[in-house]
Amino acid sequence: MPEKIRIKDIHALRVTEGFDLADVDPASTPFFRGDDDDLDQEYEQHDDTLEDLQTNLWANAKTGNQETGSVLLILQGMDTSGKGGAIRHVFKPLHPLGYRTAAFGKPSKEEAKHDFLWRVTQHMPARGEIVAFDRSHYEDVLVQRVEKMAPEEEIERRYGAIVDFERAAAGFGTRIIKVMLHISPEFQKENLLDRLQDPEKFWKFHPSDLETRAKWNEHMAAYQLAMERTSTEQAPWYCVPGDNKKYARTVIKHLLVDALRDLQQPWPSPDYDPAELLRRVEEER
Amino acid sequence: MPEKIRIKDIHALRVTEGFDLADVDPASTPFFRGDDDDLDQEYEQHDDTLEDLQTNLWANAKTGNQETGSVLLILQGMDTSGKGGAIRHVFKPLHPLGYRTAAFGKPSKEEAKHDFLWRVTQHMPARGEIVAFDRSHYEDVLVQRVEKMAPEEEIERRYGAIVDFERAAAGFGTRIIKVMLHISPEFQKENLLDRLQDPEKFWKFHPSDLETRAKWNEHMAAYQLAMERTSTEQAPWYCVPGDNKKYARTVIKHLLVDALRDLQQPWPSPDYDPAELLRRVEEER
Repeated sequence: MPEKIRIKDIHALRVTEGFDLADVDPASTPFFRGDDDDLDQEYEQHDDTLEDLQTNLWANAKTGNQETGSVLLILQGMDTSGKGGAIRHVFKPLHPLGYRTAAFGKPSKEEAKHDFLWRVTQHMPARGEIVAFDRSHYEDVLVQRVEKMAPEEEIERRYGAIVDFERAAAGFGTRIIKVMLHISPEFQKENLLDRLQDPEKFWKFHPSDLETRAKWNEHMAAYQLAMERTSTEQAPWYCVPGDNKKYARTVIKHLLVDALRDLQQPWPSPDYDPAELLRRVEEER
Repeated sequence: MPEKIRIKDIHALRVTEGFDLADVDPASTPFFRGDDDDLDQEYEQHDDTLEDLQTNLWANAKTGNQETGSVLLILQGMDTSGKGGAIRHVFKPLHPLGYRTAAFGKPSKEEAKHDFLWRVTQHMPARGEIVAFDRSHYEDVLVQRVEKMAPEEEIERRYGAIVDFERAAAGFGTRIIKVMLHISPEFQKENLLDRLQDPEKFWKFHPSDLETRAKWNEHMAAYQLAMERTSTEQAPWYCVPGDNKKYARTVIKHLLVDALRDLQQPWPSPDYDPAELLRRVEEER
């Protein structure tokens, strides 16, 4: 019998006190034992639930329920860790009118003039929305720390600013899920070789990816620190082993289902009399 | 043998001179003969192509190719005609980082202060993007005409403004696909009865839907006029029979594939030497 990934188990991947990134094996699949077929099944098992829960969230927002929450899924990880692919696959059961995505690259000139949170603020979910960030404000404490693009005191300030910002969002009803897709250098190597051998993938590769790769340990240290400092009750980090892509996507889907379950509310009551209107439509000439 | 819907045939659904909405049977399935299974197959046959073409478009935009186009899919139709569902299903093979959707309801106070095209302008696709509109600036010449929310001269002005606006967008490289999902009053009746009997769907129904329904013929006249006046070479209308949802979605998918094929370009050339970098990665310690 394959071992199922139960949603409640997944919270063990949460970054809490004493967490050490070095303890997490990127090739492992915690709480799952089985073959690819088992994983496929596991991967799809909550799709209908996901669809229903999103509709429930959306319906409540649409009808003006001011208690309606929202979801923000933040994905971070080294190059080729599968952030974009995870968004693509996890969101497949959802209705595009109810979600948005945003990718954050190098800040534009205008963005660089503002405090680092400015550009993400405008992409935050409205009530009823599900938003995914492919990279995020965490770039400003990860690559910026490693590359010394900002002084250490500034990075320190940012951890605090992030915690405050996310607390405010949680207070508004946004469920924040932060995922580090934790891959191994060996897995990245395979992916880079793949990109460098396929003319249809050349565009995904940047020579600077190799410079980042050369500083793997510094990046891991920056992740460790960032997660330590910003994994809070209201906006926890999950460190998800990423070498098995389908496993990672399954975990993310489970986290999304869990967040949406928390936000579930009764279906909106109609502000009209359904029985009467039903009669009217039925009795039409 | 089931008859396949060939992409080139679909252009016959285009609104051209002499078009009469009354000639289109909402329950028909032009260019398709077969059962549900055949239609399922037809529906999915271009999914991989769609995915590849979107990646090609996106890759070119990402690497700064200023010749990269974009797609705008506009969906109009009476209540319950399946506009939202069509977007949901047609976009399923696509990567959410490369598309966006926008739904246009009653204008906000701020929007109403501006010319009618103002609010859609900000949702237009950037190079490399695919954007779907669930309702659009056409509401301003459809419901607004029927309900006399604007004088007739103003509606006349809007037809012209729309043609100019869409010509400019096409000039920028945006492929505009405008679809009227043409359903019958009988089909709508079934859908409304369904919504009025399912507490999970009450939120989708508004009593005003019945007032709109009571003016079915006026709405059809407004559609006829709007399509006549704004179906241009660069932004044609397609009148797609909508009583068979899967058929309608298949047609829209085909139209999307066709537009993306037109926009296809060679894969971007790398601005680095793949062979050299490949060697570097392979030879890593």
